[in-house]
Amino acid sequence: MDAQRFRERIGRAAAATGGDALDAIVVGPSADLSYLLGYEPMPLPRPTLLVVRPGRDAVLLVPLLERALAVDAGAGEIVEVSAWRDGTDPYAAAVGLLPAAGRIGLSDRIWAKHVLGLQAAAPALSWGSASGVLGRLRARKDPDEIDALRRAGAAADAAFDDIRQLPFAGRTEADVAADLRRLLVEHGHDIAEFAIVASGPNAASPHHEPGDREIRTGEPVVLDFGGSLDRYHSDTTRTVVVGEPPEGFEDVFALVHEAQEDAVQAVQPGVEIQEIDRAARRVIEGGGYGDRFIHRTGHGIGMEVHEPPYAVEGDTTTLEPGMAFSVEPGIYLEGRFGARIEDIVTVTADGVERLNRSTRDLTVVG
Amino acid sequence: MDAQRFRERIGRAAAATGGDALDAIVVGPSADLSYLLGYEPMPLPRPTLLVVRPGRDAVLLVPLLERALAVDAGAGEIVEVSAWRDGTDPYAAAVGLLPAAGRIGLSDRIWAKHVLGLQAAAPALSWGSASGVLGRLRARKDPDEIDALRRAGAAADAAFDDIRQLPFAGRTEADVAADLRRLLVEHGHDIAEFAIVASGPNAASPHHEPGDREIRTGEPVVLDFGGSLDRYHSDTTRTVVVGEPPEGFEDVFALVHEAQEDAVQAVQPGVEIQEIDRAARRVIEGGGYGDRFIHRTGHGIGMEVHEPPYAVEGDTTTLEPGMAFSVEPGIYLEGRFGARIEDIVTVTADGVERLNRSTRDLTVVG
Repeated sequence: MDAQRFRERIGRAAAATGGDALDAIVVGPSADLSYLLGYEPMPLPRPTLLVVRPGRDAVLLVPLLERALAVDAGAGEIVEVSAWRDGTDPYAAAVGLLPAAGRIGLSDRIWAKHVLGLQAAAPALSWGSASGVLGRLRARKDPDEIDALRRAGAAADAAFDDIRQLPFAGRTEADVAADLRRLLVEHGHDIAEFAIVASGPNAASPHHEPGDREIRTGEPVVLDFGGSLDRYHSDTTRTVVVGEPPEGFEDVFALVHEAQEDAVQAVQPGVEIQEIDRAARRVIEGGGYGDRFIHRTGHGIGMEVHEPPYAVEGDTTTLEPGMAFSVEPGIYLEGRFGARIEDIVTVTADGVERLNRSTRDLTVVG
Repeated sequence: MDAQRFRERIGRAAAATGGDALDAIVVGPSADLSYLLGYEPMPLPRPTLLVVRPGRDAVLLVPLLERALAVDAGAGEIVEVSAWRDGTDPYAAAVGLLPAAGRIGLSDRIWAKHVLGLQAAAPALSWGSASGVLGRLRARKDPDEIDALRRAGAAADAAFDDIRQLPFAGRTEADVAADLRRLLVEHGHDIAEFAIVASGPNAASPHHEPGDREIRTGEPVVLDFGGSLDRYHSDTTRTVVVGEPPEGFEDVFALVHEAQEDAVQAVQPGVEIQEIDRAARRVIEGGGYGDRFIHRTGHGIGMEVHEPPYAVEGDTTTLEPGMAFSVEPGIYLEGRFGARIEDIVTVTADGVERLNRSTRDLTVVG
């Protein structure tokens, strides 16, 4: 991308600070920094901080030994690059770039070490979150970003189409997870980021870590997998069953399927995102499993797997074309089984587009 | 490791809070949490926080959908696991576990999002760093930890012994970096974490990102590489030259070599770690390149590649047996070349042990 596009993004961030009563924002290594600057060094004990100020040019403060790295990445064409040297106080240097008084917004992933360092160096300033400013900017994707999400979603779908042809019974969760990761990359992801394979009672643990448990015939298996492609993420969940499902499972699955469908159909411009959560919850509560749907319905997705906005009661973000998020209701019965279905969707001018199209029906595997 | 060992570590952390005038510490997903609890979930927008309090049992606060994950990882055998549910305020839940007044220490890598959330939920509390408490604990490695570092160092040495037999001239930095990563894993690392390959003028950039630049005969190349093995890290730098070195390079290299040797020989119990930095800097300043040695001499290493203490002016940590850190002076001449030599060393009862033993002499490659 050209420097001009990054300068525009920084300009929009600077202009938006006032809406959150912030006098400047400070952005650390993260997708936020990558979005604004196309530069994302490793987050390390030595702070790298981009200072964005309304009415003034932005400045990137870097450790001296990473100045060349930042310049090679093109940061110098977008902002002024200022370096601090080991043995000097980087927080004093950062505070020197901030207004003398007012409220400063910090990006979500700046380390506590650096937050405390900044706060100690400038006791007269107050500190808030830059997440509102940056989250709103990043939530409204442009067509290139949606296209990247669409391609990542298609690659995840292709991985699912392949994995469901492979044997499950008698193999470990970890083995199937390794296959899923391989397939994510084979179908176009640059990196396979995660592959949850949760079988039998483990499927009742939404963030289960796949292990040595052997998958058996008659068990449902939740597969939740994703990767990144051109820096944008996929995140898809499908629930399969090895042979015949256990007693009671089909009713639970049907509820999850209906909840996911209703929630997706609720997506359109002008609706608050918490309505998507309500649509899914209504179905599952109606089926008597409200207390077993133990997480929100979805999360924004883009340069991060989880980013604002969130499909949860209390998030009143109004949906606009270009927003993208997951819709992933689930039901979890401890000691028995679980089910979840997840698609990424994007808001269109008049409704919704699913970025995942692999079958959501209960799929029997071998 | 057994639960008892983790309980002891948590007990030592709780007992040490008073030394830093802290009334409790809060630890987020990071090597700190892994060290105290053997549990390290992905850091995510949903906070996971371990609260450690002197005189009271520690509590792990987790998102409800990760309760099973935490329990499966054994956290429930070590501490009480308390869950917060999507749509409720996790920061209020965390503050409920903290004293009503006093100063709370935060682990270094807790996200700003969570720091600001905690601060807003408890305006009467003051906030400091838990890095002193946790850094001191983790800096004094036990024999098992040193053994893991020793094995990681030997694996990195073996990778260097192999890479220097391979061709450099005519290949890109990225190609050589890919080989280095492969060799790190072949020789026993679980994960190859980084491989800097900085050729010709790029070697003047200490954290250079290897790219498509073709390496040419007559160029020095800085190789800085490492990985993790049983959760402990290696981090080694060697400088090689492709054929005949350029004019002036051998003198620079000899200075770096002497500085590294003097700094390593300065390591012994009872010495402040800043003396290691001074020993290296003395040699390089004596050679007239003081302003071209643009970083500190070293950093602690263990479950993180970079962790306290730091070999830098101002770090007065007194060396004790079991501490481990890098010794890595360098000289960087912009537009021309650079040189750096790095070993991991550990403090012994009466001196120092190098954990890297591959040749530090100027190595000619093809």
